[in-house]
Amino acid sequence: MKPAIDFYFDFSSPYSYIASEWIGAVAARHGRTVNWRAILLGATFQVSGLRPPAEFPMKREYLFRDVARSAAFAGVPLRMPEPFPIPTQNAARVFWWLKAQDPAQAVAWARAGLRAYFARGVNLSDAVALKALCAEAGLDAEAAEAAWNDPQWKLALKQANEQAIAAGVFGAPFVVVDGEPFWGNDRQAQIEAWLTAGPPRGLE
Amino acid sequence: MKPAIDFYFDFSSPYSYIASEWIGAVAARHGRTVNWRAILLGATFQVSGLRPPAEFPMKREYLFRDVARSAAFAGVPLRMPEPFPIPTQNAARVFWWLKAQDPAQAVAWARAGLRAYFARGVNLSDAVALKALCAEAGLDAEAAEAAWNDPQWKLALKQANEQAIAAGVFGAPFVVVDGEPFWGNDRQAQIEAWLTAGPPRGLE
Repeated sequence: MKPAIDFYFDFSSPYSYIASEWIGAVAARHGRTVNWRAILLGATFQVSGLRPPAEFPMKREYLFRDVARSAAFAGVPLRMPEPFPIPTQNAARVFWWLKAQDPAQAVAWARAGLRAYFARGVNLSDAVALKALCAEAGLDAEAAEAAWNDPQWKLALKQANEQAIAAGVFGAPFVVVDGEPFWGNDRQAQIEAWLTAGPPRGLE
Repeated sequence: MKPAIDFYFDFSSPYSYIASEWIGAVAARHGRTVNWRAILLGATFQVSGLRPPAEFPMKREYLFRDVARSAAFAGVPLRMPEPFPIPTQNAARVFWWLKAQDPAQAVAWARAGLRAYFARGVNLSDAVALKALCAEAGLDAEAAEAAWNDPQWKLALKQANEQAIAAGVFGAPFVVVDGEPFWGNDRQAQIEAWLTAGPPRGLE
């Protein structure tokens, strides 16, 4: 059994959304599973000293165009939501709450949350909208709300952020294959090549 | 005759070097020429508010690994030079001096300069090393040195930076195809797709 691929994502990251639509298939093609890990980029930005790309007007304009093009290129339905970005700690806490019970259900929630925000504009930072999305996803919405207000799952997310930072994660999506870090939706081809043939010559 | 592709690069940008090795072939496959444009990322960083990725320790560590992997993946010989990054205004002024006389010679110089720095560690910010490289590239080294000290070519580079910023350039390599901006060596596949079939559905 080959080790799982780590997949770090933030519910407010459009490139994470695009990658979330292919990471499972890529892993499966190579006999791997995916260890999904919801994080908050806000936490990694604080430690790395980086700032969200959308805060820089020139980069923000490009980002919107590139996200739309990258989604179309990957065949993923996407409509940049307003507002963007949004705080996503509640959606992330629901993820970790679910993962402790049933990792497959956590993955289903991750995909549902990313799709809802980036394909339909569902504002995951709005408690009412988030509860409605939980119900739509077949979860107990009251229990989900209790979980995102529960110190236990707040702590679980905090620890997930700390683990990510310790692993060198400074952006999302961030994929780690057998210790090798890949940052960005645009590293799909390199991830595939690595899974197929291992390190390229000179990088063993 | 289809319009040329704009290719903005900085002599100190490793991803520009990797892209410089494929941009000509990609353009030629689609009946296009390439309009090479040497710029200084220092100038675009100042206006965009961005900072060099290598200034952030977490990103710097990743950058070195990713550059080596991306070069290997593209089949381009690369050894990260020390020091890195370096000021490259002199190499860039030589580029614009040559371009005014003979654009093909300027391209040859761009490729020679990028290869010298990133494959052999030739420090382009060192006047002696740069003159030796000019001679090796078949240029009149004395005339090249005179050019990089000449207010005319200082101004030409300044204007090139301003033109780039006005065109939305905030990083390198930066490729513009019929008005569509592509940032990064990692956009090769999207550039190819755009050149082949134009905008993807929904982005016309």
